[in-house]
Amino acid sequence: MSMDVYFATSNRNKFLEAYEILSKLGIILKWLRITKVEIQSDLLDEIAKKSALEIAKRTGKHIVVEDDGLFIEALNGFPGPYSSFVYRTIGLKGVLKLLEGVEDRVAYFKSVVAYAEPNGFVKTFEGRIDGTISLEPRGEEGFGYDPIFIPESYNKTFAELGLKIKNTISHRRRAFENFAKWYIESRRTIQKSF
Amino acid sequence: MSMDVYFATSNRNKFLEAYEILSKLGIILKWLRITKVEIQSDLLDEIAKKSALEIAKRTGKHIVVEDDGLFIEALNGFPGPYSSFVYRTIGLKGVLKLLEGVEDRVAYFKSVVAYAEPNGFVKTFEGRIDGTISLEPRGEEGFGYDPIFIPESYNKTFAELGLKIKNTISHRRRAFENFAKWYIESRRTIQKSF
Repeated sequence: MSMDVYFATSNRNKFLEAYEILSKLGIILKWLRITKVEIQSDLLDEIAKKSALEIAKRTGKHIVVEDDGLFIEALNGFPGPYSSFVYRTIGLKGVLKLLEGVEDRVAYFKSVVAYAEPNGFVKTFEGRIDGTISLEPRGEEGFGYDPIFIPESYNKTFAELGLKIKNTISHRRRAFENFAKWYIESRRTIQKSF
Repeated sequence: MSMDVYFATSNRNKFLEAYEILSKLGIILKWLRITKVEIQSDLLDEIAKKSALEIAKRTGKHIVVEDDGLFIEALNGFPGPYSSFVYRTIGLKGVLKLLEGVEDRVAYFKSVVAYAEPNGFVKTFEGRIDGTISLEPRGEEGFGYDPIFIPESYNKTFAELGLKIKNTISHRRRAFENFAKWYIESRRTIQKSF
C-alpha cells in the first residue's frame, strides 16, 4: 500500500480546503501541523519545493506543502510571494491605495503545491485564476485578499461569492487537482509494476 | 593566525562599504560573491543567522552576511525584511503613495550582520538609524530607499547627504562596527589563551 501523504501547514483553513478537494478524488490527506521555514524568492515554485523537501527529509514522510500569492500586474507582481506579510502590514487598504487612479487592475492568484519524498524526489503543481482588483473591499466570507479579488467571468469578489463557489474555481483547488491526478496515476503505475 | 573572514553577498556596493568600514578597524574582509538563499521571516536576525550558518557549513569558511530593511512605523514595519522586493515592484513611488496624507512618517533602517563558523558557531550584531520618510524623492547619490529617508538630526535625505556622510552614520556601519569590536576582542582573547 502507498504511504500516507501529509500536508504541512500551520493554517487550519488551508488544510480543510485541501482535505476536502483531495478526499473527493480518493486521497486521504493527513495534517502535519507545523510552521514551515520558507525561503525568500520571487518564485513560488522554488519556495514550495525547498520547504517540501526539507520537511520530507526531516520527518521521513511524504509531504505536500502549498504556497500561494496574489500577483497584481500594474504593480509588477506585488505582493506576490510576500502576500501574507503585505496583508499583515499595509493590508487591503494599502493595496487599494497603491491602485488609486490605476486603470489596469488585472491580477491573478497563483498556487503551487510541492510534493516531496524523503529520498529527495520532489515535483510541483500549479494552479492559477485570473481576475481583477475591485475598487473597494466587498463581501464577508473568506480571508486574506478575497474581498478585493474578482475572478474572471464573475462580477463579484471571492468574499461575495463565498467559500463554496470560491473553492470550486480557486487557484488552490486547481493546483491540488493537478497534484491528485498525477499522484493517482503514479500509484497506479507502481501497482501495475508488481 | 586567525582565519580570513568572507562577506557573502552578490552586491558589490555592500561589499565595498563593509570592506572600507572594517579595514579601518584592522580587519581585511574578503569577498565571497554568491547569491545567498534567505528564509522568509519578519525578523532580519533570523534571516541573517540562517544564511550565515548555511554558507559557513557549506564552504568551510568564516562567513559574515548582512541583511537590512526599512521599517516604516505607520505601515506596521512595511517593507521591512522584504525591502528589496518592494523596491523592485512598487518602488519609491509606491511607498510614497502609501504614505499620502499620513502625518506620522517615522521610520528606521535596521541592519543585521551575522557571523558564522563551519563548526556551527553563529552570532549577530545590529545597527539602526532612526529618521523619517520625505514627502518626495530628493538627491542623486546612493541607492534603494536613500532618496526618501531623512536621518534624525539632519534635514536632508541620505541621497542628498551623499555616500560619504551616509556611510559614517548608517545602520550598516553601526552593525559592522559592532561586529568588528567583538571580533577583535575575541581574537585577542584567543591569542592570550595560547
